[in-house]
Amino acid sequence: MPPDLQSIVDEIVAAMATEEARGKVATYIPGLATVSPAHFGMAVVSADGSVALGGDAELPFSTQSVSKVFALTMALGKVGDQLWARVGREPSGNAFNSIVQLEAEQGIPRNPFINAGAIVVADVNLAGHQPREAIGELLRFIRFLADDEDIHVDEVIARSETETGFRNIALANYMRAFGNIHHPVERVTGVYFHQCAIAMSCLQLARAGRYLMLDGLLPDAGRVISARRARRINALMLTCGHYDASGDFAFRIGMPGKSGVGGGILAVVPGKASIAVWSPGLNASGNSQLGTKALEHFARLTGWSVFSSRD
Amino acid sequence: MPPDLQSIVDEIVAAMATEEARGKVATYIPGLATVSPAHFGMAVVSADGSVALGGDAELPFSTQSVSKVFALTMALGKVGDQLWARVGREPSGNAFNSIVQLEAEQGIPRNPFINAGAIVVADVNLAGHQPREAIGELLRFIRFLADDEDIHVDEVIARSETETGFRNIALANYMRAFGNIHHPVERVTGVYFHQCAIAMSCLQLARAGRYLMLDGLLPDAGRVISARRARRINALMLTCGHYDASGDFAFRIGMPGKSGVGGGILAVVPGKASIAVWSPGLNASGNSQLGTKALEHFARLTGWSVFSSRD
Amino acid sequence: MPPDLQSIVDEIVAAMATEEARGKVATYIPGLATVSPAHFGMAVVSADGSVALGGDAELPFSTQSVSKVFALTMALGKVGDQLWARVGREPSGNAFNSIVQLEAEQGIPRNPFINAGAIVVADVNLAGHQPREAIGELLRFIRFLADDEDIHVDEVIARSETETGFRNIALANYMRAFGNIHHPVERVTGVYFHQCAIAMSCLQLARAGRYLMLDGLLPDAGRVISARRARRINALMLTCGHYDASGDFAFRIGMPGKSGVGGGILAVVPGKASIAVWSPGLNASGNSQLGTKALEHFARLTGWSVFSSRD
Amino acid sequence: MPPDLQSIVDEIVAAMATEEARGKVATYIPGLATVSPAHFGMAVVSADGSVALGGDAELPFSTQSVSKVFALTMALGKVGDQLWARVGREPSGNAFNSIVQLEAEQGIPRNPFINAGAIVVADVNLAGHQPREAIGELLRFIRFLADDEDIHVDEVIARSETETGFRNIALANYMRAFGNIHHPVERVTGVYFHQCAIAMSCLQLARAGRYLMLDGLLPDAGRVISARRARRINALMLTCGHYDASGDFAFRIGMPGKSGVGGGILAVVPGKASIAVWSPGLNASGNSQLGTKALEHFARLTGWSVFSSRD
Repeated sequence: MPPDLQSIVDEIVAAMATEEARGKVATYIPGLATVSPAHFGMAVVSADGSVALGGDAELPFSTQSVSKVFALTMALGKVGDQLWARVGREPSGNAFNSIVQLEAEQGIPRNPFINAGAIVVADVNLAGHQPREAIGELLRFIRFLADDEDIHVDEVIARSETETGFRNIALANYMRAFGNIHHPVERVTGVYFHQCAIAMSCLQLARAGRYLMLDGLLPDAGRVISARRARRINALMLTCGHYDASGDFAFRIGMPGKSGVGGGILAVVPGKASIAVWSPGLNASGNSQLGTKALEHFARLTGWSVFSSRD
Repeated sequence: MPPDLQSIVDEIVAAMATEEARGKVATYIPGLATVSPAHFGMAVVSADGSVALGGDAELPFSTQSVSKVFALTMALGKVGDQLWARVGREPSGNAFNSIVQLEAEQGIPRNPFINAGAIVVADVNLAGHQPREAIGELLRFIRFLADDEDIHVDEVIARSETETGFRNIALANYMRAFGNIHHPVERVTGVYFHQCAIAMSCLQLARAGRYLMLDGLLPDAGRVISARRARRINALMLTCGHYDASGDFAFRIGMPGKSGVGGGILAVVPGKASIAVWSPGLNASGNSQLGTKALEHFARLTGWSVFSSRD
Repeated sequence: MPPDLQSIVDEIVAAMATEEARGKVATYIPGLATVSPAHFGMAVVSADGSVALGGDAELPFSTQSVSKVFALTMALGKVGDQLWARVGREPSGNAFNSIVQLEAEQGIPRNPFINAGAIVVADVNLAGHQPREAIGELLRFIRFLADDEDIHVDEVIARSETETGFRNIALANYMRAFGNIHHPVERVTGVYFHQCAIAMSCLQLARAGRYLMLDGLLPDAGRVISARRARRINALMLTCGHYDASGDFAFRIGMPGKSGVGGGILAVVPGKASIAVWSPGLNASGNSQLGTKALEHFARLTGWSVFSSRD
Repeated sequence: MPPDLQSIVDEIVAAMATEEARGKVATYIPGLATVSPAHFGMAVVSADGSVALGGDAELPFSTQSVSKVFALTMALGKVGDQLWARVGREPSGNAFNSIVQLEAEQGIPRNPFINAGAIVVADVNLAGHQPREAIGELLRFIRFLADDEDIHVDEVIARSETETGFRNIALANYMRAFGNIHHPVERVTGVYFHQCAIAMSCLQLARAGRYLMLDGLLPDAGRVISARRARRINALMLTCGHYDASGDFAFRIGMPGKSGVGGGILAVVPGKASIAVWSPGLNASGNSQLGTKALEHFARLTGWSVFSSRD
């Protein structure tokens, strides 16, 4: 008998409401710093299409790095496996390594989910486009995946990233010095900052992630990507989706997932569910404190894990 | 309809026989350097207990780092989650970082599958024992898991590791300087070197791995570890099991696995199969060249992956 | 009896003319790549004001990093020891560390002679100015030191640096992310790139370096900096003046010095001489191959070294 | 007129007596932890042979890393410039790099004054000897340099190093893995630990350093090493003598020097003086807090610096 997902979501929402340690809201992007840590939302879309919602599940938040999943999917659609000549597929070790490794590995970022890798992905998506068009195309793709035309870029956030994103601009210039960024840096980071500023609710995000639980298919719209590519994106989310806490997330939760500093996490159980959680307070690793905890509850209550034989 | 595993194994054995690029046999341990790269063996044990064998599936080889999976399982049985105060659960980034990170992270290795981490595990398993007893206990545990009393330590290999293992002795002393090795270094490395020298055939190895595909149970012998712990060991194998090619293995093959420089790999599909392959030639990442390739064939032919919804 | 410097210079010029291994001309700045490796020039200005010239001693070349000495002197004149809150005074270890250390040390470059440190110095010199004025001020300072109004910026070189200096732009953005660059990056790097493009002959350079051999005094113009500051700049040149070959330069030559990728080196023997050599071919460490060799001859023939008691 | 060194020493001793911030005594070697931070001693031996003493100038202390200067001199006497194939001559950058660089640079330590480099020097000095003989030879060499037969090894310190020196044993094993240690590790570290435990007073140490101020000569005993080698050892002391504060020591004090965690520092002004200071409390860089301060006073009061033209 399948688990009663709405009851599970309700139980989790209730548990999260009483949590006192809610993490710290990211402050380095001005537009994010004002969000209240009191928020918690959760949405689960099952393989059969049923939906369970809880808390602030329909309130939009800044997806930040979660959007890297969709940008990667789009870039793979454009250049296929040629992407892997410019971006690796290995976890990055710890935080401070990213830039060491960029140097040691000649401007090739370790994976598409660290900032440097996502900037290369943005460079790929920019090919033949103006920045505005590239962002438009990504937005249309996400709207299509979520079947929701309301998804948009939060321009205030986008601008505040542009003003303070010196570190990302540094990474882009650094990779350009190695020839691994092909367009002018300000255009590439323009795409990147707008992509990070895409706002979505948990419901929209869980819907947008359905193709990853369904081996690349969308129920009504048909095949988005091949089953093999869906598996591979899931693999990358599992090994690289949570910065230097990716191993711990796999260990404790056992689902492919991608987090963002806005406090959102998209998690996928192939064949079972696409799950989105959101709570703005971050833990020491930069992942949503309550979001991670909620997913750990969810994994325990459903028994779902890619590392288990249960069906 | 379940795949015909014997046909699949036969097809893979035939394909591997014609491969010309077979990698390079490890030479830094004298006892390994003389093994012929012509060997290839494969064994698959299904969840229902059926067995498919091919090539040199019954020839013993040096398991080397594959044995770390069993040593970790034993250590968790002894000290439980206290182990994680002394060893991390994150991928190590790239090869050269291991020792940087030992320093940066105060003598705490990143995970139990890099050498430093496995040396801490050996230190845990040594508690209250003489080295000989600790190795005896591990050997009995592996024999129990594989239901095979013939598994033994290759003393020639063990001695050649002892003589040339300066780097591992260095790691052990380094961690002892941080207080993370509790026993005299020569006793800890004694256990470690003998553990690496455990010889098994593909058949024995695939049988020994059954508890990881069966959520911690053995068909005849009952529960070995909890389902939660089995999931977690699988998660560690997936994120950390192949040195700095762990991400690539997850991307291309999508199964928890652990490789060793003897050319063996143990891979697990929860609920489906425990698989062992062996071919002594290594690729640039230090993993079996044909073993990796064979598992990629296997994943394609069966459609099995933890990242797919197929059943 | 003081050494006959003109004879020594003549001997060195003759010896250098027969050298076949002349190093490789820097190619990463387009404007430098076309300079012939056949050039060799040398100028020695003694404490008593006498001058010895040889080879292409009066041909201007791109000073590149040698100009960092004068920019540092000017910045110290502006902000004094407050500079050291923003830049360290330690050798950088090896090349690849610079950016690691920038991260590990919170955006504080190790010393003012690595690129990151010189970019901070440029940021200091820019305070209250337009980039054009800041460069003008530096140029006037160098003309004053050398007593030569012909010293100028090579605009072709300056432009080619601006176009390809992604790595330096990356460093500047990276430090700005840590708050250690106060002006817009493009203005700071504008100053930096123009400063690197200052062209001088060996004669002009050796004259410009006189204040460092004379404890901060200029014979006709009086005190430029305090004796203490002159000593300290000399100390920095000795420990940090030749990238990751600074130790070797001190070991073999024993004089404070600063090299540039244009092939120039300024060296100082306090109380004795200010010496400039130039030959465009670089050795593996990025310092002038013949320039280093010529200075080694010079040290041997004169017996001069800061590490010797000879007078 | 030469400075009145005894008055200067008296002034410094008086000033140091009132200092309240005296640093922290090293505790990682049990035998050192019990020394009182109240001690301060200073001895200056001039080029003309006159001696100025102050404070605890005749109390023996553990020389620790200061002894590396004499061990290096002895090793250069044995193998000459062949030593440089096994040890570099560059500053090590910051502390954490030592072991990174050992790995990146294939087991070649950056310089003979970091622990790894001094262990290679001990390996050189051990050639053809028993450890006891190698230490005996070094002790005789130092007694000869100081013209004092009372200098000895503090066996309590030597034993406490042997028991806790896991990190140095790790370095030795690590280099042995690269083939850069030729003797069994326990014999090499035996020599190294005893060498560190050589006890000397400031007077003995300043006398032992005379050959470095006199271009390799000893007044009564003749040439110890060539003038060129004396210059080069001075250069190494200046660029590498104070761990990651070498640049700062050169900047502030401007003399070749070598410090030890026992709180001693040997400093040399070629042609002028050999100076030893001792105070057990260390600053954050691991160098004697008062010793460094005292030398800064001394440099200011005498005007002596290798970076100045003053005579």
